[in-house]
Amino acid sequence: MPKDINRYVLLIDCPDAKGLVSKISTALFEREVNIFSNREFVCPESWQFFMRTEFSGTTNHQELLNALQQILPEGANIRLAEKCKKRLVVLATKESHCIGDLLIRSTYDDLNATIEAVVANRVTLGPLVEKFKIPFHLVSSDNRDRLAHAMEMLNIIKTYNPDYLVLAKYMRVLPPEFVSEYKNRIVNIHHSFLPAFIGASPYKQAYQRGVKIIGATAHFVTDNLDEGPIIGQDVVPVNHRFTSAAMSRAGKDVEKTVLAKALDLVVNDRVFVNGNKTIVFD
Amino acid sequence: MPKDINRYVLLIDCPDAKGLVSKISTALFEREVNIFSNREFVCPESWQFFMRTEFSGTTNHQELLNALQQILPEGANIRLAEKCKKRLVVLATKESHCIGDLLIRSTYDDLNATIEAVVANRVTLGPLVEKFKIPFHLVSSDNRDRLAHAMEMLNIIKTYNPDYLVLAKYMRVLPPEFVSEYKNRIVNIHHSFLPAFIGASPYKQAYQRGVKIIGATAHFVTDNLDEGPIIGQDVVPVNHRFTSAAMSRAGKDVEKTVLAKALDLVVNDRVFVNGNKTIVFD
Amino acid sequence: MPKDINRYVLLIDCPDAKGLVSKISTALFEREVNIFSNREFVCPESWQFFMRTEFSGTTNHQELLNALQQILPEGANIRLAEKCKKRLVVLATKESHCIGDLLIRSTYDDLNATIEAVVANRVTLGPLVEKFKIPFHLVSSDNRDRLAHAMEMLNIIKTYNPDYLVLAKYMRVLPPEFVSEYKNRIVNIHHSFLPAFIGASPYKQAYQRGVKIIGATAHFVTDNLDEGPIIGQDVVPVNHRFTSAAMSRAGKDVEKTVLAKALDLVVNDRVFVNGNKTIVFD
Amino acid sequence: MPKDINRYVLLIDCPDAKGLVSKISTALFEREVNIFSNREFVCPESWQFFMRTEFSGTTNHQELLNALQQILPEGANIRLAEKCKKRLVVLATKESHCIGDLLIRSTYDDLNATIEAVVANRVTLGPLVEKFKIPFHLVSSDNRDRLAHAMEMLNIIKTYNPDYLVLAKYMRVLPPEFVSEYKNRIVNIHHSFLPAFIGASPYKQAYQRGVKIIGATAHFVTDNLDEGPIIGQDVVPVNHRFTSAAMSRAGKDVEKTVLAKALDLVVNDRVFVNGNKTIVFD
Repeated sequence: MPKDINRYVLLIDCPDAKGLVSKISTALFEREVNIFSNREFVCPESWQFFMRTEFSGTTNHQELLNALQQILPEGANIRLAEKCKKRLVVLATKESHCIGDLLIRSTYDDLNATIEAVVANRVTLGPLVEKFKIPFHLVSSDNRDRLAHAMEMLNIIKTYNPDYLVLAKYMRVLPPEFVSEYKNRIVNIHHSFLPAFIGASPYKQAYQRGVKIIGATAHFVTDNLDEGPIIGQDVVPVNHRFTSAAMSRAGKDVEKTVLAKALDLVVNDRVFVNGNKTIVFD
Repeated sequence: MPKDINRYVLLIDCPDAKGLVSKISTALFEREVNIFSNREFVCPESWQFFMRTEFSGTTNHQELLNALQQILPEGANIRLAEKCKKRLVVLATKESHCIGDLLIRSTYDDLNATIEAVVANRVTLGPLVEKFKIPFHLVSSDNRDRLAHAMEMLNIIKTYNPDYLVLAKYMRVLPPEFVSEYKNRIVNIHHSFLPAFIGASPYKQAYQRGVKIIGATAHFVTDNLDEGPIIGQDVVPVNHRFTSAAMSRAGKDVEKTVLAKALDLVVNDRVFVNGNKTIVFD
Repeated sequence: MPKDINRYVLLIDCPDAKGLVSKISTALFEREVNIFSNREFVCPESWQFFMRTEFSGTTNHQELLNALQQILPEGANIRLAEKCKKRLVVLATKESHCIGDLLIRSTYDDLNATIEAVVANRVTLGPLVEKFKIPFHLVSSDNRDRLAHAMEMLNIIKTYNPDYLVLAKYMRVLPPEFVSEYKNRIVNIHHSFLPAFIGASPYKQAYQRGVKIIGATAHFVTDNLDEGPIIGQDVVPVNHRFTSAAMSRAGKDVEKTVLAKALDLVVNDRVFVNGNKTIVFD
Repeated sequence: MPKDINRYVLLIDCPDAKGLVSKISTALFEREVNIFSNREFVCPESWQFFMRTEFSGTTNHQELLNALQQILPEGANIRLAEKCKKRLVVLATKESHCIGDLLIRSTYDDLNATIEAVVANRVTLGPLVEKFKIPFHLVSSDNRDRLAHAMEMLNIIKTYNPDYLVLAKYMRVLPPEFVSEYKNRIVNIHHSFLPAFIGASPYKQAYQRGVKIIGATAHFVTDNLDEGPIIGQDVVPVNHRFTSAAMSRAGKDVEKTVLAKALDLVVNDRVFVNGNKTIVFD
């Protein structure tokens, strides 16, 4: 893929109206930028219009934003971002497969993001993270009030000024006070094809139900456990020979792949949140 | 595949004990039959032993069964079946994709079974079924008590002496009095990857939840709606452009494929029921 | 999905130039039509621009086409089609699974097309086709010169004035004289994941190679056997227990699904041909 | 899964004969070992019999092997292995995704094997490997004769006494003199769904052909490039928006997953080689 130098992403969402594509694309054309790709969608329920445009070229950004504001309906959200690496803070507990995968990817440029720090409630992953010269913060959750623990993590996280938080098998529920600080910016990986097997021990639930497929779901975190907007999902076949432990083992590959793909979409500004759903311009 | 003439399937399940494979395979060896394939499984929860053996050759079946009865633990279930086409009765409502697929398959030898009759609670599918010269029975459910309706169907079904019943998008719940007549012999196709979206309108539920995969589940019918032993499942990817109707349309292909595959396993004696799960020797 | 009454598809392809989206969408906006969806793509090799727009509303079509012609670069291809059922003629030999599936779909409105006639070089499928009251033409290829045979079929086909031809497991190569009559309008299903196993007996080849996946490919027919633009592909897992015949059997489900999906895209004007590739706005 | 202490795998392959399962399972039963699982297969072409049995318990291994030798046809291959971690040497060039994945897995017990050393013909991966305290040997291939280069690697590899070699995107062809030293013990990952796109630059070939799926193949290395026995394969969907570079990027996830799954099967003694095919008891 070509270098992303001088490459921008314009993200617009607003109530639908006739002529939006015409007006927006004309505004860009008049400023002589070079459009690489355009994606639009109108939600047939909320009648919200979503558009993602990638372009290169030099233009006065503030002037472009002002012009778009004039053209678009009231309440329009307009973001214009230079394509660049996003800053991530990863939260984890003790499983290595998701965070290990992210460390390799970010180190070797397979992820358009940098991992600024890892915050964990167990010490287990410290040695792995430190191999990659990334700060590792242990904030033990033992004998701690949930809110106090979350707020201590939050204080550390804020010092890294992250664009997104990634829950790479972080096995505790985050309180609303924490979630509200990073609305639609916390990506979690859940080890089931939601909404099946919400809550604890999904592989055990899957084993007991005798399903023939297991899966994983990447979603934004909201105040309702396992009910945030889904970004991506995938599954693998299982059979009667799989114990709950074997399902858990097989599921790890899906978990890490689904999380990495979802994150790739998020950090490349390809995901809009539309109520409790996502729009993914992949 | 070779012709199934003089080909038999031996199905055994019993409490696990040391030496079962040795004893059973020696009993067969002594009778000089030719074993094609052997599959075994011991459930790590129930410690029940399951074995499926395909063989050809002439032997005195009653004598073999008696010998096995001597060898095996008390309570052993032993079935010895000649490989032959199973007899099906199909229940349907108005959707054509599953039943259409089964009609084509059974007519052109892509399914090791014959459709003896179709029973429906709507008239819609009559013309399709009759093209294939198969009896079509309309038992309208309008203004009928559930039990009375089911029993009327049951009376018709029994005259065909089916090995299995297939619910090919039959959209009503069957009462326990009906289900108990064909225990572990009624195969249903549910239009979601169970246990997600139990109950009515799963595609509408899927749309509202914003999932990125939809699926279908074939299972044996029990008294608990959508909770019987799962035989097979599969999924297809969807995205934000899919309305609930588009999901329903995309799901039809999975539904008919999952149902046909499950049925293929069932009519070829490849499925054991183990509590609320299945063991599938595919 | 909403009814397709008064719904149109505008298909444009032309050399890329700055401002195309702006100009086209403004032309539509000025005519006050209601755009449902817009898809664009610029090929990074050929620098050809492709756009598909679905809209509803009343406008003078000839006037719109003239206006677009003025706006667009020389050599632009512009098609404006009312969304309506396409007319198909199906060619087949003796396998029932693909044609059976298409007959069920077209009869029950699961395919936005009508099957006007079936032309076959064997008599096998006659009874199936006639169940659906569709003309069946046997043009035997026995002891016939390939060209003469194809031309006899062509004469019959032309009387039905089809939009597309579908090779639903038609097992003979069509001569260039035939293919040129329906350039980019003949859809074939090949029983392998092309370019693996080009030519005859792909399942036998797959068995001999010991692959762990088999597949199917829907493509437009060109003069080079199995090398036309690919519309869609899918695969299924196999293992060492699959004989060549078992692979063939498992492959049938993929073949019919891949063909139906590809056809659905084609008849809904979602497929552009770009050299030897396709652009699919699904 | 239970601990593998005192757990053994018995692998037998020999010409098929009546009574093999009976004789083998009786020999085990008489020695009072506890069988966990049994898998058998008879190749319908070569009429070779393959059996894999997992058992626990104490028995005199040499005595058991002698007894089996008496029972089985001449030319039988019998292996009895304690379940333990296999020793791997990994060969690589410069891509990080496969080797990074294997390093994480082996470090965190997600792979039943240890990486004893990495041998590379480029220096790129040195820093990654050394993070994990694993010996990294650079054997530059610049200006080197293929054979001399391979033999230098071989000398290093032999000092680690590996059970298997893994080519984790090692981008050079190995000469027969090297391959013959580790017959059926070298696992390669090829970045296409073989036999499609044999040879160099498969993603470029895939892009040019316009395929809608890409894939990866894990196989044992033989003297014929990309033609060794296939252990596992998988695919991912692509579309017209994928450049060759984007395909390569999407393919990496499949490559590393397919390689890891194949290796998991191999190091757990689940793969037999049968001519140019594999039998996988998964």
